[in-house]
Amino acid sequence: MIDENHLFPAEPTQRQIARELYRHAKDLPLISPHGHVDPVLLADDQPFPDPARLFVVPDHYVTRMLASQGIPPARLGVPSIDGSAVETDGRAIWRLLAENWKLFRGTPSRLWTEKVLSDVFGLTGPLNAATADDVYDELSARLAEPEFRPRALFTRFNIEVLATTESPLDELHAHAKLAADGWGGPGGRVITTFRPDNLVDPDWPGWAERVARLGELTGLDVGTYPGFLNALRSRRAAFIEAGATSSDHGHLTAATLLLSDADAAVLYRKALGGGATAADAEAFRAHMLVEFAKMSLEDGLVMQLHPGSVRNHNEALYQRHGRDVGGDIPSATDYVHALKPLLDAYGTDPRLRIVLYTLDETVFTRELAPLAGGYPSLYLGAPWWFLDSPEGLRRFRETATETAGFYNTSGFVDDTRAFCSIPARHDVARRIDAGFLARLVAEHRLPLDEAAETIADLAYHLPKRVFRLEKNS
Amino acid sequence: MIDENHLFPAEPTQRQIARELYRHAKDLPLISPHGHVDPVLLADDQPFPDPARLFVVPDHYVTRMLASQGIPPARLGVPSIDGSAVETDGRAIWRLLAENWKLFRGTPSRLWTEKVLSDVFGLTGPLNAATADDVYDELSARLAEPEFRPRALFTRFNIEVLATTESPLDELHAHAKLAADGWGGPGGRVITTFRPDNLVDPDWPGWAERVARLGELTGLDVGTYPGFLNALRSRRAAFIEAGATSSDHGHLTAATLLLSDADAAVLYRKALGGGATAADAEAFRAHMLVEFAKMSLEDGLVMQLHPGSVRNHNEALYQRHGRDVGGDIPSATDYVHALKPLLDAYGTDPRLRIVLYTLDETVFTRELAPLAGGYPSLYLGAPWWFLDSPEGLRRFRETATETAGFYNTSGFVDDTRAFCSIPARHDVARRIDAGFLARLVAEHRLPLDEAAETIADLAYHLPKRVFRLEKNS
Amino acid sequence: MIDENHLFPAEPTQRQIARELYRHAKDLPLISPHGHVDPVLLADDQPFPDPARLFVVPDHYVTRMLASQGIPPARLGVPSIDGSAVETDGRAIWRLLAENWKLFRGTPSRLWTEKVLSDVFGLTGPLNAATADDVYDELSARLAEPEFRPRALFTRFNIEVLATTESPLDELHAHAKLAADGWGGPGGRVITTFRPDNLVDPDWPGWAERVARLGELTGLDVGTYPGFLNALRSRRAAFIEAGATSSDHGHLTAATLLLSDADAAVLYRKALGGGATAADAEAFRAHMLVEFAKMSLEDGLVMQLHPGSVRNHNEALYQRHGRDVGGDIPSATDYVHALKPLLDAYGTDPRLRIVLYTLDETVFTRELAPLAGGYPSLYLGAPWWFLDSPEGLRRFRETATETAGFYNTSGFVDDTRAFCSIPARHDVARRIDAGFLARLVAEHRLPLDEAAETIADLAYHLPKRVFRLEKNS
Repeated sequence: MIDENHLFPAEPTQRQIARELYRHAKDLPLISPHGHVDPVLLADDQPFPDPARLFVVPDHYVTRMLASQGIPPARLGVPSIDGSAVETDGRAIWRLLAENWKLFRGTPSRLWTEKVLSDVFGLTGPLNAATADDVYDELSARLAEPEFRPRALFTRFNIEVLATTESPLDELHAHAKLAADGWGGPGGRVITTFRPDNLVDPDWPGWAERVARLGELTGLDVGTYPGFLNALRSRRAAFIEAGATSSDHGHLTAATLLLSDADAAVLYRKALGGGATAADAEAFRAHMLVEFAKMSLEDGLVMQLHPGSVRNHNEALYQRHGRDVGGDIPSATDYVHALKPLLDAYGTDPRLRIVLYTLDETVFTRELAPLAGGYPSLYLGAPWWFLDSPEGLRRFRETATETAGFYNTSGFVDDTRAFCSIPARHDVARRIDAGFLARLVAEHRLPLDEAAETIADLAYHLPKRVFRLEKNS
Repeated sequence: MIDENHLFPAEPTQRQIARELYRHAKDLPLISPHGHVDPVLLADDQPFPDPARLFVVPDHYVTRMLASQGIPPARLGVPSIDGSAVETDGRAIWRLLAENWKLFRGTPSRLWTEKVLSDVFGLTGPLNAATADDVYDELSARLAEPEFRPRALFTRFNIEVLATTESPLDELHAHAKLAADGWGGPGGRVITTFRPDNLVDPDWPGWAERVARLGELTGLDVGTYPGFLNALRSRRAAFIEAGATSSDHGHLTAATLLLSDADAAVLYRKALGGGATAADAEAFRAHMLVEFAKMSLEDGLVMQLHPGSVRNHNEALYQRHGRDVGGDIPSATDYVHALKPLLDAYGTDPRLRIVLYTLDETVFTRELAPLAGGYPSLYLGAPWWFLDSPEGLRRFRETATETAGFYNTSGFVDDTRAFCSIPARHDVARRIDAGFLARLVAEHRLPLDEAAETIADLAYHLPKRVFRLEKNS
Repeated sequence: MIDENHLFPAEPTQRQIARELYRHAKDLPLISPHGHVDPVLLADDQPFPDPARLFVVPDHYVTRMLASQGIPPARLGVPSIDGSAVETDGRAIWRLLAENWKLFRGTPSRLWTEKVLSDVFGLTGPLNAATADDVYDELSARLAEPEFRPRALFTRFNIEVLATTESPLDELHAHAKLAADGWGGPGGRVITTFRPDNLVDPDWPGWAERVARLGELTGLDVGTYPGFLNALRSRRAAFIEAGATSSDHGHLTAATLLLSDADAAVLYRKALGGGATAADAEAFRAHMLVEFAKMSLEDGLVMQLHPGSVRNHNEALYQRHGRDVGGDIPSATDYVHALKPLLDAYGTDPRLRIVLYTLDETVFTRELAPLAGGYPSLYLGAPWWFLDSPEGLRRFRETATETAGFYNTSGFVDDTRAFCSIPARHDVARRIDAGFLARLVAEHRLPLDEAAETIADLAYHLPKRVFRLEKNS
């Protein structure tokens, strides 16, 4: 059972204030403007699979920690792409987690998981080798009940709007079904996000084939650069029809570049022909960020930038299990020089809105807070990945607020594919914000009534406004 | 009204100790060895203009935050350089500030402003849309009174010495008047600082014209490199006559370079002829830092280095409103390699003294504390800009002290053009130092009596010594 | 006298929990898997020299701080290499320390020294100019007593195993004597560490001569690259015979590189011939890290990587006093790209174990915790140098734990040549860990019983396991 003072400062004055502030945020609906939940889950509304496939197999926070202590992902059921065998027995996988639960002490995975077990599934005991089977059985029983189907949980979780993330090549069938059921479409409860990385990165294997597929899907001629842009515009329109209010861009760097149409066309042709150098590819990605900004001026999609992740760093893991299984590592990221070309062109255009994320927290004070606190187009996104933890969230407020204030930040983003953990993640953020604001109040830096208004803004009103979700409810 | 426990730790034991320590610093005179107050203000001693022109128009902390939320600087009265219209009604500007006061929650601007309203002007109510006009009227009434003239406030603020900052091209008339009135000159209450950036940066538009003006002003032949150096020496002597004890250098990087006289002369000629490349310009700036260090060995001026600010990052702002209006952004800054040429030459010379500032706080533990804690010539300047805030000041002590101790730091530097906020800024620093020292005492890491001596040293004795202000009183 | 609550959080709830947790770690034996104690000290077991030579002369934390405030190392008895005179009177040196003791306020040197004076030597008064002579006399008297000989202190300190660090050129006579006395050898109380930097860095003056000496020592032909590798293997075997369980590598960068045997041989020949460029030298060092990793797969030595120190930054100090006297400065260090070649080759090999240290604490969250939390071969070493302090240790746990957990860290490493300070350093680490864990408990993030198990693991069980010291006792 999670204590009611979970994550609040221990010092009694601040704890008391934090409890009071948290009351103002606790029951507000959840706004989830960016994440990776599979929309099929909510479209089909089928029961979840077994506990291992819910809690372990798809969660790379969990599998990477176990791998770091010598438990290969294959033993955790992570699907292989090289045909090698992987564990399929959910109970065996679950036992491995339970036996090694001490590895997660001090990590957010532990907090989230225990909150889900307790708050969502009503379990009260500890997780360890001795309880593994009982917990597995109890979870399995709950998952078979109708109240634990995805849509029922969505309602129970008090989620107001949830954005999933799709490639432009996704035909959005799940979102169409959601719309047909009254759950999706513009202003709906479940919306999509336009994520074109795999169409603008010539270094990504299979790029030309995907571009060709874009042509088929849109019926437009992608053999020319203007045709390629039109095809992307066409997919943006389709995504907006499926409720999208934002796009998402996960390049290695935050580099932006303004090429002339002619130069861009040359680069595009070169890349399509397979002749792009690494520098060409970086230039093309950088230029495309500016093109997407220009499209945003017209269609209003909020841009999200997620740079700084060295993808597939763990080569052995990548060869055996492919992408997005815990092999990515952050690296130092520059924004101040990288974004200047884009900002020079559109940084003060009132139509542009960009939410900046980072995996390199040194930039909070040095670059992102000064940028977001100076440019009307820029907002500082919530701590992302590796940093979406109690200490990470606390340091974010401590390092960003004095220069950016609260109102140039975007509110919490759970960024998760673990649907059941969404309330736990938002609750952690609300509690940490309560604790931070409580310190400001206790140190006589902010009156209590203003802190109370602020925490409600951070938890609810601000993300709705920043991500242009006012129509959603 | 500001609470007497403002900014002290909430935990009662530490708060009690912090209060006790603060008592030892609270009433010590203010030493302001580096800032941007206009000396004409104190030379002429005329009443301040209206509240908007005092609190909003010249304060880029304030205007950039409002701009970041879509209020253009023109609406805040920031002068334009392109002839475009700007708001001139002080009351209208003030209302914009008051209506948007919530944007400043958690920022130092809020703390400083409320302390000034309360402690300097005696206001007791909150600032918001409803109170905007009353506050404006009350401030206006106060500003008309003789006790609110600059010199009266200077005395009331208990400022012992205030250094302004001037270009070598400044003829120092204001300082001459101050000296004539018994306020300026060597050992005086108001002194100047030698800031030659615009004469050593060939990339700065109009450089050659300014060099020519230097020749006129000094009557020396600046057509040759030795003549240029002599002209700078001549201006340093004039600045020292106007009380200067330090120079200030605000390059983009901390790069230093030792060129031979012959090579420097070649570079100088090339730059004067307009043919300097970007690399030439950087080499010239880097070399000139070493030349200034050599001049310091002779004339005793303390060097201040302020690297790391990407000037005029916001192009639209720069085009419309020019320099120093909130468009600068910090960037990652290396010191350990950049300073080595200078330190190899003079780093252990007992005559040299350099105070190092940074906008990149990652260097406090990694570079600046190890450098200042190893070289007799180096001191670690107070957190600067963006970091001159409660959290920034606290992190500075937490990250620098263990390697540099307290006595390789320079004491607080307000670095402000906002004259009325000087006591508030120093008070914030003293309170944060009290809180930091209180933690050391409460954790049995430092006895109370030593902490009391330390806080008085940090607040008063140390900056006097480091900036060679012992003669000033 | 050090208070029993030394370094614990001031807030009463957390302090109470920290006290309780500390109880579980306080009396556990000390594991010192990496340091620079001279093995001759323990082999010969002669009395320590005078207090100045024990506390000041060899401790560059102390001499650099005094140097930074204008007291030249020569006045502190630091041996010169240029024949210049240095102070030889221990009492005079000691007085300089005592008179300037205030410079150390807030530094770990102060904490360690006062703990040693109090806990090891039983002194109870303060250190200052007035007490300098009395303290000196008392220390001198103690040092003459048999209970203050090195081996007696080793036993009193409850050290279970201490690793010293030697060059492959060291003939390990001291370790042989220790083994003969029942103190050394495999599984012994005092063991060695294989530190080959001076044999793999062609930039280090005298490299070729040292390689030749390696040939003599091993009787192997180091004229060829395979012979060079064999000679290193031979020395590793000798070190393992002297108890070594790990190697240590202190390159400027963490760069790794896989060359073919042929390419490596070309580079080796070029370097031996004196024709290696800076890039060649870096390539050779980077390649040799991979060679050492390959050797580790076979012989089981744990690799320690200590990159990021700019050696001999202070040129004047280096010219007069040589290496390792406080002239090194940290610099920004990349691991994520630098280590990739090595990790691609062997990062998931269960036989490989690498402990990563850093002087650049920005990498804890951004690079080292994600790497250690993902690769089975990687562990995160304790904060090193400049960061092995209360605040540094606390920030390490705050920034590394959420991604790496506790069990991908290696436990505390004192890394010291100051033998008498070993218990003080470990005690500081245990107290800081107790305080960090107490916060987790007080904020309901970890139950007390798990925190108690964790602190014992961190203090004792984990370093034994990570450094493969299970046989030692």
